[in-house]
Amino acid sequence: MNLDNFFKAKSVAIVGVSINPEKIGHVIFRNFLDANFRGRLFVVNPSVSEILGHESYKTVRAIPYHVDLVIVAVPANLILSVIKDCGKKNVKDVIIISAGFEEVGNYKLRDKLKKLLDCYGIRVIGPNCLGTFDAYSKLDSLFLPRYRLTRPHEGGISFVCQSGAAGSALLDLASKEGYGFAKFVSYGNAINVDEADIIEYLGNDKETKVICLYVEGIKEGNKFVEICKKVSKKKPIIALKGGTSEAGSKATLSHTGSLAGAAEVYEGVFRQCNIIRAHYLEDMFNYARILEKSIAPRGKRVQVITNGGGYGILCTDAIIENNLEMAEMDKKVLASLAKQMPPIVTMKNPMDLVGDADTNRYKIAIEAALCDKNVDIILLILLYQTPLLTPDVINIVTEFNNQKKKPIIVVSTGGEFTELLKHSLEETGVPCFTFPEQAVKGIRVLCWYYL
Amino acid sequence: MNLDNFFKAKSVAIVGVSINPEKIGHVIFRNFLDANFRGRLFVVNPSVSEILGHESYKTVRAIPYHVDLVIVAVPANLILSVIKDCGKKNVKDVIIISAGFEEVGNYKLRDKLKKLLDCYGIRVIGPNCLGTFDAYSKLDSLFLPRYRLTRPHEGGISFVCQSGAAGSALLDLASKEGYGFAKFVSYGNAINVDEADIIEYLGNDKETKVICLYVEGIKEGNKFVEICKKVSKKKPIIALKGGTSEAGSKATLSHTGSLAGAAEVYEGVFRQCNIIRAHYLEDMFNYARILEKSIAPRGKRVQVITNGGGYGILCTDAIIENNLEMAEMDKKVLASLAKQMPPIVTMKNPMDLVGDADTNRYKIAIEAALCDKNVDIILLILLYQTPLLTPDVINIVTEFNNQKKKPIIVVSTGGEFTELLKHSLEETGVPCFTFPEQAVKGIRVLCWYYL
Repeated sequence: MNLDNFFKAKSVAIVGVSINPEKIGHVIFRNFLDANFRGRLFVVNPSVSEILGHESYKTVRAIPYHVDLVIVAVPANLILSVIKDCGKKNVKDVIIISAGFEEVGNYKLRDKLKKLLDCYGIRVIGPNCLGTFDAYSKLDSLFLPRYRLTRPHEGGISFVCQSGAAGSALLDLASKEGYGFAKFVSYGNAINVDEADIIEYLGNDKETKVICLYVEGIKEGNKFVEICKKVSKKKPIIALKGGTSEAGSKATLSHTGSLAGAAEVYEGVFRQCNIIRAHYLEDMFNYARILEKSIAPRGKRVQVITNGGGYGILCTDAIIENNLEMAEMDKKVLASLAKQMPPIVTMKNPMDLVGDADTNRYKIAIEAALCDKNVDIILLILLYQTPLLTPDVINIVTEFNNQKKKPIIVVSTGGEFTELLKHSLEETGVPCFTFPEQAVKGIRVLCWYYL
Repeated sequence: MNLDNFFKAKSVAIVGVSINPEKIGHVIFRNFLDANFRGRLFVVNPSVSEILGHESYKTVRAIPYHVDLVIVAVPANLILSVIKDCGKKNVKDVIIISAGFEEVGNYKLRDKLKKLLDCYGIRVIGPNCLGTFDAYSKLDSLFLPRYRLTRPHEGGISFVCQSGAAGSALLDLASKEGYGFAKFVSYGNAINVDEADIIEYLGNDKETKVICLYVEGIKEGNKFVEICKKVSKKKPIIALKGGTSEAGSKATLSHTGSLAGAAEVYEGVFRQCNIIRAHYLEDMFNYARILEKSIAPRGKRVQVITNGGGYGILCTDAIIENNLEMAEMDKKVLASLAKQMPPIVTMKNPMDLVGDADTNRYKIAIEAALCDKNVDIILLILLYQTPLLTPDVINIVTEFNNQKKKPIIVVSTGGEFTELLKHSLEETGVPCFTFPEQAVKGIRVLCWYYL
């Protein structure tokens, strides 16, 4: 299914733009203005003649230009007439933000809407959804104001979310953390575009490197499996399933109206599709970030290099717990390394460069691990609290990472200074984590996907 | 053991203050100046007459005042003469920052030092440690500069850490996150003050509400068990054990020189002492924060109140997974609640106040849950992305929390705006978490400790 218009429309009409700045339609309109949307933008509101200097049209049909995408934010009882209008105007893509369909028991309205969409051949994202966001084209139909929900910058993560609130909260968090996004879709009731259609589209989207999915219930299981099997060969899909417990499953009924089904069934479906399952929200983006940035490892032997002994030990514990292996570097390489290091440095795994390690000590150690045939992955701990570790260590790590020989994953825990250096390093394409366990769980997923 | 001087000394001498601002002794001295230490401060360096306007004494004995605490940052080979000097001056408390003892195989020097300490009756924190920090008295002997390692503000968490690097990284992180601390100790080789002595002291410290411990190896098992059994009755102890895997355990040998021992042994020791075990670094402070702030629950029935359906479901899943119970509110209470709410609100558990929930809707819901005898704990989800949820919700939650009827725990995920409101709420004493799973794991620990 070609969903281009939902992300790259060149002409957009928003139906239901109130002059009241608190109303949803108005917020969407404002967001388009604030995002400097580069296409043509039209507002539809029959009761006024202009809004914020933009001419207001009485209907979609009254717009004297072709319209790629219509965004509808009117009460549910007005939807059918708006859709008829779109159909007559030959609009093929519509986002229906409005709620008031099966999630409140109004199956009749849902069925009527569905029939009308079939009749005109209109694709709809929604109803009862948050809309779409494209970090590259800047098309942004989310109805939440930017001061509340900051939009993320460009990157490789696309996020498909059945729950609007979860989607918006996570998008907002991701922006703060500096994670790069390609596309975001909150698809709500999925009247004729469902999660599988969106995943298929993202599978072919060149900006999307990894797909994240929050789902409570999948409506068409076979279609989902068929599509995800294909897409997961091209790029990783990470899924978080809401409603795995019986009590949680019951709650999904009144939320998205979907029957969640037994956790085991979904576990099986995900496995069948080679979908990476995230058990917790926090894991989802940690997995996404490592899969977005890292090259494929050739094996699961990890060499830990650290300037803090305790952190090396915690990484070692996590590596064993996650069924990865501690690399054993070649004895000759280690012997030659030892000659270049002060005697206090531990030439083992974890390799403890100790508290006074400077950039040069890291350089020598990383270089050796990159060349050693017994090492598949380098887990680098950079604790910036000690003044001898100068910020130029970032340049060294970046240079090595750009050689694309082996995955290099970094752990740095700390405050403002650490965050600054961590973000700089992430921007050059190195996956960085706050805690040892997060990094190692990420490495496990990386190995699971590629090996 | 009275360790007051390590945290509240009124007169402090630093031995080994170089004029080179990069040297450890100098950094400690600078930190004392920057922290506006309110006591008397002396520097000892025989080769200069003054440093930064402070008279430099040739020896500790040359200081013409009583000295409560001496901090030593000289090379290991000079330690014995400094200690003799301290002994003759009748100094009873010394922090030895210097490394170069058993951790590098120098058992002889360690034994000589120990004998000397016994002879003079001197208590030592260290050697090979980072030092101590007291957020209340502002005594700060950590040798890391403040621009690298930000110090946390006053609060109820005390952290005892065998590893200096782990300690400094976590302290720095905690400062950024705004967690409040009482005391911090990096005790290194623990020549005659060990983790048990420090825990015993913190057990009687009125500012310490909860004790966190990172430990690789415990030297005197029986003493540890005896002390922790007593202290854990007064306040919670949370422990993270480094070196639980065989490979990790081996690495502890060259790190803190301690034999880590089988994970199962430690698991047993912790259980025997009623110590809460954190499996991951991230968990440790999450547990500490909820235990620091929350009142004791009367049972484990949790009522979830949310403005995001998906988050309510994820919390429900986590509650079941963590062996807690979903509360079932009294039917009459629910019926009366329903009358005050719009029909779209789900009167169940999770109670979904839906996306347009405002402060008043939360107020009504929280009040009902607080009064309902079937509810023990309230898990509140506040997603601030929707503009109708105004910041005054914080006042309502604070008021209810101050009534101290039931634990109220909050989950908020988001960016800058969310963080601002989250921190404001935390400052009034409400434990707030970013992810549902963190909050629920915290609640599990809270129930485990009190029920």
